[in-house]
Amino acid sequence: MYTLVVVRHGESEWNKENRFTGWKDVDLSAKGIQEAQKAGKILNERKFAFNYAYTSRLTRAIKTLNYILDEMNLNWIPVVKEWRLNERHYGGLQGLSKTETAEKHGEEQVKIWRRSFDVPPPAMDKNNPDHPSKDPRYVDVNQNELPNGESLKDTVARFLPLWDQKISIDIKAGKKILIAAHGNSIRALVMHLEHLAPAEIMEINIPTGIPLVYQLDENFKVLSKEYLGSEEDVRAAMSHVASQGLKVKST
Amino acid sequence: MYTLVVVRHGESEWNKENRFTGWKDVDLSAKGIQEAQKAGKILNERKFAFNYAYTSRLTRAIKTLNYILDEMNLNWIPVVKEWRLNERHYGGLQGLSKTETAEKHGEEQVKIWRRSFDVPPPAMDKNNPDHPSKDPRYVDVNQNELPNGESLKDTVARFLPLWDQKISIDIKAGKKILIAAHGNSIRALVMHLEHLAPAEIMEINIPTGIPLVYQLDENFKVLSKEYLGSEEDVRAAMSHVASQGLKVKST
Repeated sequence: MYTLVVVRHGESEWNKENRFTGWKDVDLSAKGIQEAQKAGKILNERKFAFNYAYTSRLTRAIKTLNYILDEMNLNWIPVVKEWRLNERHYGGLQGLSKTETAEKHGEEQVKIWRRSFDVPPPAMDKNNPDHPSKDPRYVDVNQNELPNGESLKDTVARFLPLWDQKISIDIKAGKKILIAAHGNSIRALVMHLEHLAPAEIMEINIPTGIPLVYQLDENFKVLSKEYLGSEEDVRAAMSHVASQGLKVKST
Repeated sequence: MYTLVVVRHGESEWNKENRFTGWKDVDLSAKGIQEAQKAGKILNERKFAFNYAYTSRLTRAIKTLNYILDEMNLNWIPVVKEWRLNERHYGGLQGLSKTETAEKHGEEQVKIWRRSFDVPPPAMDKNNPDHPSKDPRYVDVNQNELPNGESLKDTVARFLPLWDQKISIDIKAGKKILIAAHGNSIRALVMHLEHLAPAEIMEINIPTGIPLVYQLDENFKVLSKEYLGSEEDVRAAMSHVASQGLKVKST
């Protein structure tokens, strides 16, 4: 049996302002730092032990991981920073507030983007200084694979090779893995592990800063799924993400 | 021509108390955090760009690196944590204050340890809970290579394979490298790069939190060596390490 723990980064400066962030490298807010430290404290109290960690190439996820590892006295474990764990790329919407997006593209279009699994946002122009091809952190990535605007389906598709070729192999090799990532890259993982349909994953929102613990059997069948937090904590974190409810086991 | 930048971690809780720290995993003090952030700020101001970092498996060096990378918006670069960059292992002296050491072993013996290049401290007992063989962070290391008390000569010897087999190769491959490490593992690097004799390296003290910048030619001949700090900063940092002076170029 394997244990896999996943944490969504805490609040960022743009989450506060309700802007589409995506691959924009926005830092954690003071509240986001506290969320990360709290996640580290509860993992430490529950005696979780990790010897390997994955995160994205974005500051808010990396720092969330750093704060957790520091609380656990696990600064020394290897950390791999993978672009395939980055947040969904929001293309031409990046930087816009939800209000600005509605003004620019209309309420109806925003609803379509929000509710659909496979409709991408408008593409980011290749000449935009924020385009991933202009960012030194992605020089090692095949430039044809770099997104300029993703649907959730696209995010799932670019996450899966990382799972198949690295993370799942590390788990089978006995590594005890912690993943610190983003709402939609974690959704990609959840969809894959739980064999969810598009309509099902669209209903799931990942709370920030609350460790999600999967117990898996040797074939990666999910034996249990648990959020490490009080029911109140999980609910409060979820309510920031979306209004819809979700049944979760919390402790 | 290559640029290599090295930083010694800032003050730790035990540096404050003047205890032999070695491989004991003591955290940075508040002052140590400030030193690291200051190092990051000056590297950022001087427009240094790194795309790869090395550090030890000890919290105080890893966190020094993390603070520097955060100041430089370089959280995303790969970080490799190598036991060969750990501080010199002080064996049976670890945890003792300088005063306690003198009481236990005599002033004369302490002088011999302090001044000699190749006299190791008393060995740490293999049953000591602090022995590296009992620490999960070194499970991947050949157990015969784990030290239980090192002279500076021993530290140099276990550092060199890392230089020869990894760091020097990465530099030749064009990686722009930052190393955050410890007084004696940095001395090992300095001794090797500058072809110093044992008596010469014993005279050199590495100031904490002040970036040391080497310019190297294609054969790793040192073209220049510079501390990034005011002459006053460098002097003040050095005076904490030892009373003897050292000619350095500072800016």
